[in-house]
Amino acid sequence: MRVGFIGLGAMGLPMARHLAAAGHALHVWARRPEALAPLADLAPQVAASPAALAAACEAVISIVTADADVSGLVQGDSGLLLGARPGFVHVDMSTIGPDTARRLAAAYQAKGADFIDAPVSGGAQGAAAATLAIMVGGETAALERVRPLLACLGTRIVHVGASGAGQVAKACNQMVMVAAIEAVAEALHLAAAAGVDPARVQAALAGGSAASRVLEVMGERMVRRDFAAGVEARLHHKDFGIILRQAFALGVPLPLMAQVAQQLNALMGQGWGKADTAALLKVLEQTAGRSD
Amino acid sequence: MRVGFIGLGAMGLPMARHLAAAGHALHVWARRPEALAPLADLAPQVAASPAALAAACEAVISIVTADADVSGLVQGDSGLLLGARPGFVHVDMSTIGPDTARRLAAAYQAKGADFIDAPVSGGAQGAAAATLAIMVGGETAALERVRPLLACLGTRIVHVGASGAGQVAKACNQMVMVAAIEAVAEALHLAAAAGVDPARVQAALAGGSAASRVLEVMGERMVRRDFAAGVEARLHHKDFGIILRQAFALGVPLPLMAQVAQQLNALMGQGWGKADTAALLKVLEQTAGRSD
Repeated sequence: MRVGFIGLGAMGLPMARHLAAAGHALHVWARRPEALAPLADLAPQVAASPAALAAACEAVISIVTADADVSGLVQGDSGLLLGARPGFVHVDMSTIGPDTARRLAAAYQAKGADFIDAPVSGGAQGAAAATLAIMVGGETAALERVRPLLACLGTRIVHVGASGAGQVAKACNQMVMVAAIEAVAEALHLAAAAGVDPARVQAALAGGSAASRVLEVMGERMVRRDFAAGVEARLHHKDFGIILRQAFALGVPLPLMAQVAQQLNALMGQGWGKADTAALLKVLEQTAGRSD
Repeated sequence: MRVGFIGLGAMGLPMARHLAAAGHALHVWARRPEALAPLADLAPQVAASPAALAAACEAVISIVTADADVSGLVQGDSGLLLGARPGFVHVDMSTIGPDTARRLAAAYQAKGADFIDAPVSGGAQGAAAATLAIMVGGETAALERVRPLLACLGTRIVHVGASGAGQVAKACNQMVMVAAIEAVAEALHLAAAAGVDPARVQAALAGGSAASRVLEVMGERMVRRDFAAGVEARLHHKDFGIILRQAFALGVPLPLMAQVAQQLNALMGQGWGKADTAALLKVLEQTAGRSD
């Protein structure tokens, strides 16, 4: 397929390479032309604008940061929407609010085109290994048209429901994951305060009823006091803004998530937004006067 | 070995059977003699008191409910301590406070005997399958003496540290596990409120960065709306009393756990203490007026 790609960051770069490696004709656009340099060996077709990218491609994949970024790409000057023809599909893999996803889907629908929300879980590692989990919201027919593209990027593609449902699932994923990080941090912090070796506690819990990917990966980082990101905590902080806005709009109290958000606020307030979210442990330690 | 067993409940009964099946000479004592009936086919030696049980055995295993129960067994009238000789080991597998474990260990030590705190994770299912995770605090020499007994009951035996360390690890296990249950409940509750099928969300999250034993087992229970216990929520509520007392004693703020405890309080207030802890979902639904 002729596939356009926007968002050549830590995740986007390997994803674009996977698409080209699978034989798809790779087109790109970037706000900053220097962002294209790492793909020079692939000699992708470079579009002059998002509109030109959409006009040249059967589908465009975007993975950027926030709701405003995606809205701007679609509805801004020379936006994707201006180049979209019937049958065109925009697959947005950013993590944004389901309301934004639904609004953009409606705008495309008015032109006979489709918008699929397809946020991912698995991080830069999953992007590099093409093992992302992809949570899809949107029309079945549109998903089937772009499934060959998604299959180049991830191993689990779950069609969660109608437009926005992929973003709801992603919000749920972040809720469960980041709450687990905070819970592991509190557990290991209590253990240390009680004079018990956190490494032994982490080992004792592995494989039992508390076992999780987070306990394994993030627990080990906390034990090693390795706070270099992984996924930068500021991105999880951003995700919790999305989550709490959804809860607010729906009138759904999320007592645990409200507390997780406060701990993320404290982390940001310490200036640790570019650290790994394992630094939630350090937030707790501040309260105990530990500052290394 | 001549091994005594106290606490023939849902977990204790299969555990006692495993010990007998492995060829150990099973001795028992029970506050209520009718509790011994399910073991009649094994014809265990029945002691007249905890003191008599300790006097007859090289080791005694107990698995009861609360700190006061264990203290009473050890230091009450005709308590285990009165029958303990040098070399005797009391392995307590109940979930109690580390402070109680340390206090009882000191009382045994004064008689040349040992007390091992060895709380477990895995529930009635793990007890039946002899696959419990066992978190041990106490002296290495004492643990090695009773290791053949523990090996009949569980597949993972981790010596976490000195006396009380097993209970600290168990507290950490419950923190991570029950916080995960609440997080999954909030996620599935938000999904339902947003009009997205919670079953699809649970499936989308499985195998990703939010993957956990809790998401798999408890998430599925919530999706099926099966709130029959598993582990009764009142026991997790009790565990959170232990956890927050430790935090209080150590001056360690645990913001997420404080919130989990409030949700467990709400669950108890609804009279759902004998339901599965998956009923934390129902606590959230109360706030949305759902009452089935």
